[in-house]
Amino acid sequence: MTFERSGRRAADQLRPVRITRGYTMHAEGSVLIEFGQTRVLCTASVEERVPPHRRGTGAGWVTAEYGMLPRATHTRSDREAARGKQTGRTQEIQRLIGRSLRAVFDLAALGERTIHLDCDVLQADGGTRTAAITGAWVAAHDAVATLLASGKLAASPLTGAVAAVSVGMVQGAPLLDLEYTEDVACDTDMNVVMTGTGHYVEVQGTAEGAAFSRPELDALLSLAEAGIADLIALQRQALAIV
Amino acid sequence: MTFERSGRRAADQLRPVRITRGYTMHAEGSVLIEFGQTRVLCTASVEERVPPHRRGTGAGWVTAEYGMLPRATHTRSDREAARGKQTGRTQEIQRLIGRSLRAVFDLAALGERTIHLDCDVLQADGGTRTAAITGAWVAAHDAVATLLASGKLAASPLTGAVAAVSVGMVQGAPLLDLEYTEDVACDTDMNVVMTGTGHYVEVQGTAEGAAFSRPELDALLSLAEAGIADLIALQRQALAIV
Amino acid sequence: MTFERSGRRAADQLRPVRITRGYTMHAEGSVLIEFGQTRVLCTASVEERVPPHRRGTGAGWVTAEYGMLPRATHTRSDREAARGKQTGRTQEIQRLIGRSLRAVFDLAALGERTIHLDCDVLQADGGTRTAAITGAWVAAHDAVATLLASGKLAASPLTGAVAAVSVGMVQGAPLLDLEYTEDVACDTDMNVVMTGTGHYVEVQGTAEGAAFSRPELDALLSLAEAGIADLIALQRQALAIV
Amino acid sequence: MTFERSGRRAADQLRPVRITRGYTMHAEGSVLIEFGQTRVLCTASVEERVPPHRRGTGAGWVTAEYGMLPRATHTRSDREAARGKQTGRTQEIQRLIGRSLRAVFDLAALGERTIHLDCDVLQADGGTRTAAITGAWVAAHDAVATLLASGKLAASPLTGAVAAVSVGMVQGAPLLDLEYTEDVACDTDMNVVMTGTGHYVEVQGTAEGAAFSRPELDALLSLAEAGIADLIALQRQALAIV
Amino acid sequence: MTFERSGRRAADQLRPVRITRGYTMHAEGSVLIEFGQTRVLCTASVEERVPPHRRGTGAGWVTAEYGMLPRATHTRSDREAARGKQTGRTQEIQRLIGRSLRAVFDLAALGERTIHLDCDVLQADGGTRTAAITGAWVAAHDAVATLLASGKLAASPLTGAVAAVSVGMVQGAPLLDLEYTEDVACDTDMNVVMTGTGHYVEVQGTAEGAAFSRPELDALLSLAEAGIADLIALQRQALAIV
Amino acid sequence: MTFERSGRRAADQLRPVRITRGYTMHAEGSVLIEFGQTRVLCTASVEERVPPHRRGTGAGWVTAEYGMLPRATHTRSDREAARGKQTGRTQEIQRLIGRSLRAVFDLAALGERTIHLDCDVLQADGGTRTAAITGAWVAAHDAVATLLASGKLAASPLTGAVAAVSVGMVQGAPLLDLEYTEDVACDTDMNVVMTGTGHYVEVQGTAEGAAFSRPELDALLSLAEAGIADLIALQRQALAIV
Repeated sequence: MTFERSGRRAADQLRPVRITRGYTMHAEGSVLIEFGQTRVLCTASVEERVPPHRRGTGAGWVTAEYGMLPRATHTRSDREAARGKQTGRTQEIQRLIGRSLRAVFDLAALGERTIHLDCDVLQADGGTRTAAITGAWVAAHDAVATLLASGKLAASPLTGAVAAVSVGMVQGAPLLDLEYTEDVACDTDMNVVMTGTGHYVEVQGTAEGAAFSRPELDALLSLAEAGIADLIALQRQALAIV
Repeated sequence: MTFERSGRRAADQLRPVRITRGYTMHAEGSVLIEFGQTRVLCTASVEERVPPHRRGTGAGWVTAEYGMLPRATHTRSDREAARGKQTGRTQEIQRLIGRSLRAVFDLAALGERTIHLDCDVLQADGGTRTAAITGAWVAAHDAVATLLASGKLAASPLTGAVAAVSVGMVQGAPLLDLEYTEDVACDTDMNVVMTGTGHYVEVQGTAEGAAFSRPELDALLSLAEAGIADLIALQRQALAIV
Repeated sequence: MTFERSGRRAADQLRPVRITRGYTMHAEGSVLIEFGQTRVLCTASVEERVPPHRRGTGAGWVTAEYGMLPRATHTRSDREAARGKQTGRTQEIQRLIGRSLRAVFDLAALGERTIHLDCDVLQADGGTRTAAITGAWVAAHDAVATLLASGKLAASPLTGAVAAVSVGMVQGAPLLDLEYTEDVACDTDMNVVMTGTGHYVEVQGTAEGAAFSRPELDALLSLAEAGIADLIALQRQALAIV
Repeated sequence: MTFERSGRRAADQLRPVRITRGYTMHAEGSVLIEFGQTRVLCTASVEERVPPHRRGTGAGWVTAEYGMLPRATHTRSDREAARGKQTGRTQEIQRLIGRSLRAVFDLAALGERTIHLDCDVLQADGGTRTAAITGAWVAAHDAVATLLASGKLAASPLTGAVAAVSVGMVQGAPLLDLEYTEDVACDTDMNVVMTGTGHYVEVQGTAEGAAFSRPELDALLSLAEAGIADLIALQRQALAIV
Repeated sequence: MTFERSGRRAADQLRPVRITRGYTMHAEGSVLIEFGQTRVLCTASVEERVPPHRRGTGAGWVTAEYGMLPRATHTRSDREAARGKQTGRTQEIQRLIGRSLRAVFDLAALGERTIHLDCDVLQADGGTRTAAITGAWVAAHDAVATLLASGKLAASPLTGAVAAVSVGMVQGAPLLDLEYTEDVACDTDMNVVMTGTGHYVEVQGTAEGAAFSRPELDALLSLAEAGIADLIALQRQALAIV
Repeated sequence: MTFERSGRRAADQLRPVRITRGYTMHAEGSVLIEFGQTRVLCTASVEERVPPHRRGTGAGWVTAEYGMLPRATHTRSDREAARGKQTGRTQEIQRLIGRSLRAVFDLAALGERTIHLDCDVLQADGGTRTAAITGAWVAAHDAVATLLASGKLAASPLTGAVAAVSVGMVQGAPLLDLEYTEDVACDTDMNVVMTGTGHYVEVQGTAEGAAFSRPELDALLSLAEAGIADLIALQRQALAIV
């Protein structure tokens, strides 16, 4: 007997994904990405300088910050700004988003400027970090387009696409793109980040319950690979890149 | 010669106001309020306990927190959670929202529970605090409706409506509901909070440039009074209260 | 029947105000101001540089900090330095003092230097923020005199006087200059800051209990106007300006 | 041509591993673990209570903290206690250690007590987090032995062993147990945590340079599996478990 | 040739000491103590509970906090509340004051209550910590008198008097009660705290310049002993204890 | 009847002292010092720049930081990095270590560079601060030797040796070099820091129980003097300085 997914979703099926560009007006890139009920606002802001450790190198920087509105979740969580610090989870996620995006940037080609990716979760239903990475890439692409249009850059520093998805073992079955109730029920939770050419940028698998075997790991990786290919197609479609 | 407002708006005219209830799914009340390009997400969360200073009193509490997404503004501002503290401006605003909402709550009638109002600015174009108060009231109303529907409350602890608007002297003329470019240009900026019965809850006027005279103050107060009456009508309409 | 004020004070009467210049020896301006039992030490310190956001502008800066000794109040309050942060109330007050003083400074004429106004409450009995503004102006005037005397400035950057007073509705009657027991009992509390020419710099009215009407607001504003005129006369007298 | 490892180490060879039990005298478990020049002191402290979120559940808790002495590294790094906060890297590592150890604990069988694992790096040469996990398990085992000996526990709450190792692609070759110079040179860095029964607890792979392919990932996983089997044998040997 | 002290003060002479009781009105004990130009406000506040580590012991607690107004000194120093933490110097001083006062308290006889001693420097000219200890004892005495008068205590928990003074080697000569310019010039600075019966509570000597010899140490101790005897006489006189 | 010391140690006898140089490999000086069961790792790190307040003076700086591993003690204490701040005790100790070492440095001769002394307690059994000072001097000596060997310095900026020991009155008897159980039992605890020429750098005596008399103080000072002479001989022996 297998786990019944909401909306009769198949084990290897993504939730409906919507990518809305230009969601807010000030940022160089502003994307609302939805993975089912999960909604993350990803903005890309260009700053014409780099952090101290990059100054004078001629190369740029890409960095990310992540936040969750206090009532994005079932029960209200404390506001990090009021608590006076970010949780370990938040820091872990924003470091992951930053590394993932830098993996597809030629920082030297970006020049001495920073792209800040702010990923704020308006509504959470599982998979916020993978939605953030997937949406942030679209926002970054729009920000780069702005730089190209203004003549500040002659060629794109983007070396390809990047997207992410979660996979997990729930009641013995590998499932793609976990929503919250599945995330809670799963034994193994894995976040996979891949490029448009099918290479891995990050693989983070965690046994929440029972430890997992190599065949289970292999099944999850294959599931993720297919899901990410779909997400990258959706990113291109949103950007109208043929 | 007078100041030309964007979209040929009259001096005593509000920007288009939109109130969207149920904007996110988890909160007991969730309202997106828009004053023109200013967009604030106001959620009301019910917690079945009160802060330490209220415990054992039998009475409840209503409190507010305010935040601005880093790229809600023209240039990106630091994320308060990353800086490790809220600015004085943020604290001032959230204290104002909290006082304003408590002014229309019978806390004893609420019982020993807390309503948290989270006001997060998704996009800023002036008037975020007044939009927040106006939207938070609708969210609070929805949260109260949830409590009434579930039988946790027998009668509403709300004693009336509350709404807020900004007014200011720009180039010698009193203007209602300032947008960002007007806010920057104004000599006097005033935020007014009033109840549905036309009484004042808060009046906060500040001379940004030249100090202001009593006649100017009187003109601004009259302008605000009319604007708030319109906002309260819009709140009722959104709630379908005849 | 009306509220009986301590010492048979009339509704429109200030508490005895004492202004002691040169209260401490190191600061360029050092004033102990007393509004009845409220005692605030206001020092003005000149620093020959400006904060980062003013550098290179040629213009100066005036800023304020506010503090309350732990046992300035009826019951001891936590020391903010030990708690590791200033309360929202403290930040609100020091921002108010800073804005009020800047309203009477020509910052360009001050040159690239900062005047720090430190307002520390030694004993509190209501009206500490209004006493602080009133005293800080005298301290600032003394600091400016030092700059003039030393030849660092050729002309005063002060464009006029500024003073502040609280007013409130207590048991239906408008009262001037509330002391602590009145502050606790009042329905509406308003702090008004005005210049020597009778213009408003700040008006901050808050309904603590019942919301207030326009006639009540008008009565409070008139009361404040007369009180501030008296305070400005006392400032001039303390400075021996005819 | 392949990468020349220091000391003519083979690609699939661990550095010399030493496990010294009873390294300090106060802790219930105290282990110095050395992976070559990397030295981490792992102590296990038993506390007879649990954190708030576990109280009243009857179950226990296992948690970890990680630190690095300021001059454990080539150049001195800031002391986190003096900076006033732990870095994101530190938090990420200590969360990983905690999850890894909890994977082999039956928390209900532990009873309402906490085991704190403190992993402090005395000297760093790559692989500090994997050494920490491997050593912390031995320290935890000793702490459990203390609880068994004192009669506080009748049966061990440990469900098995856990150990960890790093693997990485350096100049196209998969290498086991990276030392610092290899870590800096690698394109892909992966930390793998496995149980004594050969199941995965955590897999964390990151492309530092080029993204990695599925065959590379497979090679790294196989390399790690063999290395961890060796480490688990060394743990048992240190504990004299046949 | 010897160091010329200001006001032709002799090497073994205290500065004029003034002790003003009842300096502020709210605290159970409130003393302004002046050692020459050094002025410290010492308040003693009684709280009817003890910190967590003393609860249920039946015994009380005495603790101190120390602060310096930003412009108590020649050049303005940062406000610790604004910086968000107390300096190491501040913490060292307040720990010293607390230990010194506890040395003359029978905490069991105090009962489960806390006496908070707040020592705030209004004006600094050297010797602020020794003035603080000396003044805090008088404030504590007044607070105890309040407890006795109200019947909360039947007998005084004070076991004697305590006072403190600084001594130092300046240009080869031992001097009593250093003022700021002497403190800056001295090679050795020592703070001595003694009881009314001539026993030592604290001796803290520091070589600021050259290390000091045993004979120098002996001379300084003798100088301090005489000075403290004088201070204790002044404390008794202020309290009108024959 | 006198206090029985562990291991039949005489009242004027040091615990076995071991000084291990080169304990870790990265630091310019790295010393493990043991006073009996107390073990402190002291590293000296050279940084080729000075803190802001020394810049441009041509002179160098010597500074210390102190830490205790969470389970260096009988019961685990909170990790300061996790709590987000150093305790007052930690700050007091690291300030003492810094002052003590600067007392034997000619900072001008050091040139514009900083020596950071990190003293981390691996195991605590009383006397950690005095062990830290004694060990830090050896580490500093090694760091200076590195600077001399590399030609960065032509002559040593060290002006002599410095060492420290604790002494205390336990049950009426003066004891040298207190271990933890003695420290807990003592009435007076004194830390003494002296140079190789027998001069005092710091004397810090505290009455933990009864205040102490001048003869007691004298006895403690004499005991410390002899102990420090022994420690300095051990330092020289460790450095093989005849």
